[in-house]
Amino acid sequence: MKKPYKKPNPGDRVEIRINNKTEQGTLLDSYDSSVLLLKLDNGYNIGFNKKDISELKIVEKAKEDKKEKDENEKEFKQSGQKPIIDIILTGGTIASKLDSKTGGVKPLTSAYEFFKTYPEIFEIADIRIKNPFMKWSENMHSGDWMRIAREVGKSLNDKDVKGVIVSHGTDFLHYTGAALSFMLKDLNKPVVLTYSQRSSDRGSSDTHLNLVCSAYAALSDIAEVMLVGHGSINDDFCYALQGNKSRKMHTSRRDTFKPINCKPYAKIFANGKIDLIRNDYNKRNKNKVKIDAVFEPRVALIKFYPGQDPKILDYYRKKGYKGLIIEFAGLGQIASEGKFNFIPELKKVIDKGMIVCATAQTVFGRLDPYVYESARRIAETGVIYLSDMLSETAFVKLGWVLAHKEYRGKVMAKHYMLQNINKEFNERLGEEFLE
Amino acid sequence: MKKPYKKPNPGDRVEIRINNKTEQGTLLDSYDSSVLLLKLDNGYNIGFNKKDISELKIVEKAKEDKKEKDENEKEFKQSGQKPIIDIILTGGTIASKLDSKTGGVKPLTSAYEFFKTYPEIFEIADIRIKNPFMKWSENMHSGDWMRIAREVGKSLNDKDVKGVIVSHGTDFLHYTGAALSFMLKDLNKPVVLTYSQRSSDRGSSDTHLNLVCSAYAALSDIAEVMLVGHGSINDDFCYALQGNKSRKMHTSRRDTFKPINCKPYAKIFANGKIDLIRNDYNKRNKNKVKIDAVFEPRVALIKFYPGQDPKILDYYRKKGYKGLIIEFAGLGQIASEGKFNFIPELKKVIDKGMIVCATAQTVFGRLDPYVYESARRIAETGVIYLSDMLSETAFVKLGWVLAHKEYRGKVMAKHYMLQNINKEFNERLGEEFLE
Repeated sequence: MKKPYKKPNPGDRVEIRINNKTEQGTLLDSYDSSVLLLKLDNGYNIGFNKKDISELKIVEKAKEDKKEKDENEKEFKQSGQKPIIDIILTGGTIASKLDSKTGGVKPLTSAYEFFKTYPEIFEIADIRIKNPFMKWSENMHSGDWMRIAREVGKSLNDKDVKGVIVSHGTDFLHYTGAALSFMLKDLNKPVVLTYSQRSSDRGSSDTHLNLVCSAYAALSDIAEVMLVGHGSINDDFCYALQGNKSRKMHTSRRDTFKPINCKPYAKIFANGKIDLIRNDYNKRNKNKVKIDAVFEPRVALIKFYPGQDPKILDYYRKKGYKGLIIEFAGLGQIASEGKFNFIPELKKVIDKGMIVCATAQTVFGRLDPYVYESARRIAETGVIYLSDMLSETAFVKLGWVLAHKEYRGKVMAKHYMLQNINKEFNERLGEEFLE
Repeated sequence: MKKPYKKPNPGDRVEIRINNKTEQGTLLDSYDSSVLLLKLDNGYNIGFNKKDISELKIVEKAKEDKKEKDENEKEFKQSGQKPIIDIILTGGTIASKLDSKTGGVKPLTSAYEFFKTYPEIFEIADIRIKNPFMKWSENMHSGDWMRIAREVGKSLNDKDVKGVIVSHGTDFLHYTGAALSFMLKDLNKPVVLTYSQRSSDRGSSDTHLNLVCSAYAALSDIAEVMLVGHGSINDDFCYALQGNKSRKMHTSRRDTFKPINCKPYAKIFANGKIDLIRNDYNKRNKNKVKIDAVFEPRVALIKFYPGQDPKILDYYRKKGYKGLIIEFAGLGQIASEGKFNFIPELKKVIDKGMIVCATAQTVFGRLDPYVYESARRIAETGVIYLSDMLSETAFVKLGWVLAHKEYRGKVMAKHYMLQNINKEFNERLGEEFLE
């Protein structure tokens, strides 16, 4: 017979015995009253069926919140001496902290809360916090990119501001990086997108290094849209990656973002040292930034796979879509014979006015439709081959191009899709870039 | 005024002058009479507008074909002493050779032609050639996988055969690798899939090393479905990769196939030396291989992107699809709020009987729906999270599972999709596997 156990409170550290194993962690509020939810020391939340728990003891009671705010607020003040960085909080793990009482995440939306969590960057600069919205990045869409672009643009055109940091969820951070690279023209100062793969309350959190390096990037001479985050799985340095040629390549690693078909701009260390890797970056200047935040949402992204029904193209056309990015196989291939032949459907939707572009589903490398005869036949349908442009960047660029009335026709859309607007094509791609 | 030039013939080596640049190459037949098509020394075919050519000279006339066949055929004979390898030619760059007269590729379908092109492997084994069909792999579909599985199975159950090599186009080679890993049960001998990124007539061809290493893999003790090809961009060794955990990761590099979330089985050198990297492989044995070559083609693969319309799920349901693989973001995320919220549509199609599975669009890493609250809500729709299984492998596995009447129901399909049938899940995934 199971013994009744003393009821613990959320926030208490508890130890349970379940199926002859022992688990320790912080008790969280659970939606389901039959489930006991623990935050383990490795940072993961795990639920246990209460009926399987044979024993529970409270290891440490939750601390009461102390009213520390008034005492500490005096530490946090803008110096008036340091350069100003605007931080735009948009959500994600980096801008949240575990609320031990509820198990949910508590957004950090005020400068003071941010200071309490990440005091280090307040040593480097005077930080101003903007918070247009809080979202996980998988819930973001083009409307959010436009809003971020406008906020960033406003900060960049404020003469007091030295640089801008956007903190963001990781999942679709690279889409926002691509969007800002097209929506902000004549960039004058660094625009740094940063993130966290592990929340700040976890021992293995990557947030502190990422933020400090982001601050140094924001004060640097590199007036580019950059992703700044861990360059390795160690806590030793960050890379500043090109905003529209980077991709999340691992579900959980801290160095999840990888440069695709190019090198990082620089290596940044926690002491502020910046080792430049490339010198083709736009330098800090006195431009007034133009904000071109527009997007045609009727664009879709399709990954080609074996036996795929080519009718999917016409589905999008009938729904009023204006453009498609298709992730082709290999050097630029899609089924070109047999019952799944895409050529007739490609011809049809392109003839009816859709803009269809091809990217590489291999992720790395460059499309080249002139090696194989079949790819030449595919090219004759009017598909636009986007060389080494990332699929994600191509999707953003296509929506952005088609939102401009003057770029919309077949000839103009092709012209702009193939024009190197902000280094989205790497002209000098070598074999060395798959790392 | 342009001078008329002497008409060259296909196969001639010519030099042209165009826009003040000089190009040399082998003249190819061209579809378009206004275009002069050259095969350059780097192996690429390139077309020039004839009207832009200011000068053309013939550097070397095409050699006449000599009737060498009879003389050389005596060199090519099965020894009767060496172990037998069955090679199944299915197409792709590896099984083709440039026909200098037409610019097209000439398939190598007979043992003799194969011997002429790749004599090295005939030193290692007695080679028997089978040629069920010739296709570029982007044109292959599940019907072809089943046919290859039956051919391979027949060879494996022939007691004279020591191992099997399947030569294949690269683009979708990893799909065939996954298919064979499920369709061949109780494997008794090595099944090696190999390829070429550069055709055998190019100086930089990778074919010779790939084929020699494949032969040694086919004679080895590793009774697994393996992809064997260049392990680096040098011509120094090959990797034997797990057939259902590999992916083409570069459009053109010779070491394009990478192990995903696991290590290679072994490193193989041209002298036959095999350095084992893993020891969890199935050893050569006396089993009779069972061929389970079935596939339900009404499955689709979808990559989730920002602002995607969730109605795409219902489009497939209405078309009678039985299953979907969706490439989720991050650790297992899809839009879960706002106007692009996928949760209601997921619920709907799953309630109506569709089997929906999630894989990681990061390519590397493992899904974990228990870290974030939103992913837990997504999981409640009944989506099956496929941990670290590759999207491509998941697509093949889902079609294969759903083709079995007894696996088809929601509970059984989930059970089989999550069962580790042939190491498609890596139970011990660490951080070290993003390379």
